[in-house]
Amino acid sequence: MSALPQVEYIRLERSGPVLHLWLNRPEARNAMSRQMQSEILETFNAIRDDRDVRIVVIRGAGGTFCAGGDIKNMQKSGAPAATDATEELRRGNRRGGAMLQAINTAPQAVISVIEGFALGGGFGLACVSDISIIRADATMGLTEVTLGVVPAAISPFVVGRIGLTAARRLGVSGMRLNGAEAVQLGIAHVAVADEAALAAELKKNINQILKCAPGAVAETKRLMLRAANVLEIDNLQELAADSFVRAVRGPEGREGTLSFVEKRKPNWVTSVE
Amino acid sequence: MSALPQVEYIRLERSGPVLHLWLNRPEARNAMSRQMQSEILETFNAIRDDRDVRIVVIRGAGGTFCAGGDIKNMQKSGAPAATDATEELRRGNRRGGAMLQAINTAPQAVISVIEGFALGGGFGLACVSDISIIRADATMGLTEVTLGVVPAAISPFVVGRIGLTAARRLGVSGMRLNGAEAVQLGIAHVAVADEAALAAELKKNINQILKCAPGAVAETKRLMLRAANVLEIDNLQELAADSFVRAVRGPEGREGTLSFVEKRKPNWVTSVE
Amino acid sequence: MSALPQVEYIRLERSGPVLHLWLNRPEARNAMSRQMQSEILETFNAIRDDRDVRIVVIRGAGGTFCAGGDIKNMQKSGAPAATDATEELRRGNRRGGAMLQAINTAPQAVISVIEGFALGGGFGLACVSDISIIRADATMGLTEVTLGVVPAAISPFVVGRIGLTAARRLGVSGMRLNGAEAVQLGIAHVAVADEAALAAELKKNINQILKCAPGAVAETKRLMLRAANVLEIDNLQELAADSFVRAVRGPEGREGTLSFVEKRKPNWVTSVE
Repeated sequence: MSALPQVEYIRLERSGPVLHLWLNRPEARNAMSRQMQSEILETFNAIRDDRDVRIVVIRGAGGTFCAGGDIKNMQKSGAPAATDATEELRRGNRRGGAMLQAINTAPQAVISVIEGFALGGGFGLACVSDISIIRADATMGLTEVTLGVVPAAISPFVVGRIGLTAARRLGVSGMRLNGAEAVQLGIAHVAVADEAALAAELKKNINQILKCAPGAVAETKRLMLRAANVLEIDNLQELAADSFVRAVRGPEGREGTLSFVEKRKPNWVTSVE
Repeated sequence: MSALPQVEYIRLERSGPVLHLWLNRPEARNAMSRQMQSEILETFNAIRDDRDVRIVVIRGAGGTFCAGGDIKNMQKSGAPAATDATEELRRGNRRGGAMLQAINTAPQAVISVIEGFALGGGFGLACVSDISIIRADATMGLTEVTLGVVPAAISPFVVGRIGLTAARRLGVSGMRLNGAEAVQLGIAHVAVADEAALAAELKKNINQILKCAPGAVAETKRLMLRAANVLEIDNLQELAADSFVRAVRGPEGREGTLSFVEKRKPNWVTSVE
Repeated sequence: MSALPQVEYIRLERSGPVLHLWLNRPEARNAMSRQMQSEILETFNAIRDDRDVRIVVIRGAGGTFCAGGDIKNMQKSGAPAATDATEELRRGNRRGGAMLQAINTAPQAVISVIEGFALGGGFGLACVSDISIIRADATMGLTEVTLGVVPAAISPFVVGRIGLTAARRLGVSGMRLNGAEAVQLGIAHVAVADEAALAAELKKNINQILKCAPGAVAETKRLMLRAANVLEIDNLQELAADSFVRAVRGPEGREGTLSFVEKRKPNWVTSVE
């Protein structure tokens, strides 16, 4: 059995062939911090060659999946005075991309369970599982552009998940979706009405996967990811990191994250009659 | 503010951050002429660097979107006597592809509003917007093959919009779809019942986009189009132009466009019991 | 008119512009044998340049489409003693891929009619038609992983048909779908309730295609397959064959196919409470 890493911002529970990975910053609606990303990445690296872990279930503690990135931190990094922030932002964005790719290409079957909010980086995290179960009353959205920043590391995963047609609509509008709409677009596979239905659906899927040979599952994923050119995603991550840094440190990102902190509308918001 | 081009076959209305672009040959159901294509292309080129134009709404005057290409002109160009037609057909097809790619990659959010008919080239034009709203009673179709010609410049945009599985079915059968079916296939995003619902849906989408930072919208589109390999489309356009010329000037294209002009069935139409 | 090959495991019926190709091993639920694959491949090669054959309808005799590969034969080939089996397995997998690609790229419009079971290789065969009509009560699934083997040659066609998001879910779980679910995922285009509805839908589609110019249909398919990078699939087939051989001759494939022959559960099946 593989040794799991020491973790603080996620919780790991091993139950036979199933590893339950809980995002565990409920006080921040599990917003993705750098440390949380590193811990998830380390976990997937630790089990990569362990065929006894046959399923990973990713879920958020406290009834919500993941509210996105750490806006307050972005606001600080966007300030012109933060001269050493550029490299840190770039590294952070690359780390996020590496984490998503590690989950996406895990040899295990990965199930994500979406409750509450899955916004920004949380939306991206919902896009890299093999099976995704969502509460009908959950809320998803690529809300970055409403804050003057961009869905950078996650864009290739979103396009790979739901195709360009749906991705560009969500990306340019920052609009929100409920669980049923997320299933219609293919972000998630099954929408469930309540906690009991969620538990039943999760168990059903786990037991269906446990009928399958673990090595064959790993090899099938590898062939399918290869056919979908998922490995090409690596080539896009440098470009994405550039975009992210420019956005966070540019005028829109500074205004957007500052208006978020100050609980007011950013200066570009307008409307037509 | 960017200077808009002088136009004759489209109509441009600027309303604050929104540019309304109307196809404006209602007497020909807005069939796409060469000049109309050039005017659209010039318009998108003129606003490319203008972040004050945040949204472009493309729509057809007179209650229909766009009935397709100019069949009568194709019929003339297909005649063996039209010896200088080959280069002109090729240039026309390339111009159509360039126009579609300019819309597809516009830094602005682009909304298309589909009413009445969107056939052939009009179908292609519906495929390059970020958000597409369609009347439930609209009619769409890739009708080229019923006239012995091919959806050439538009094929990559159709495949990019709805995927190969739906595209090949429409492409080989020339079948027609209504608005609800178009949404099911992902050509459009929302179907609306009537004029009032259309106006309300359009306003809702415009105001949602106006909550988003314009530079971030442009950058998000760029990242997503890159992830979807949309720039590869340029490489397909020479191939598409070859196909188009061969089809229009070949026996099927000549018979198909002539039968259209003569209001009779082409000679390949048959049926089984 | 092109000469059709001598065949034993399929049945060919020419009816004017339509060629009906029946998989014809009903006693084995039309499980795909090597000879059947060769006969299908030869048939499509024979008609490739024949524009008088405008439509091919692929269907299974005896009320089922195709129950998959030949598991008993795989079980024999997996045995360590079968030292010359590796090359044969590899050749068989490549033949399967070549057959699928020949159908996928046929210049004719190809219609598949799915009744009963379409599992494993039969699922793959359902993925390469231009139009697919399915009985609502049909059963589809990528059941390979439940037998310790992998959907190798077919994976690129499955991903091309329904995208990565749906493909990976089916691939890692071996779950089964009914006809309505298959249409929702885009494997098939239309679900029908019974035999009469199926006959009517098939006739409707045939007659719609017979309105289209055969050369334009062939060229439209070529452009769309090119836009979807379908020719790239050839590059994946060597990789797929490697996977297939390793799986069949590895411990999971040997146990899975043996448990199938012995009508018992494989040793990796477990469940959670």
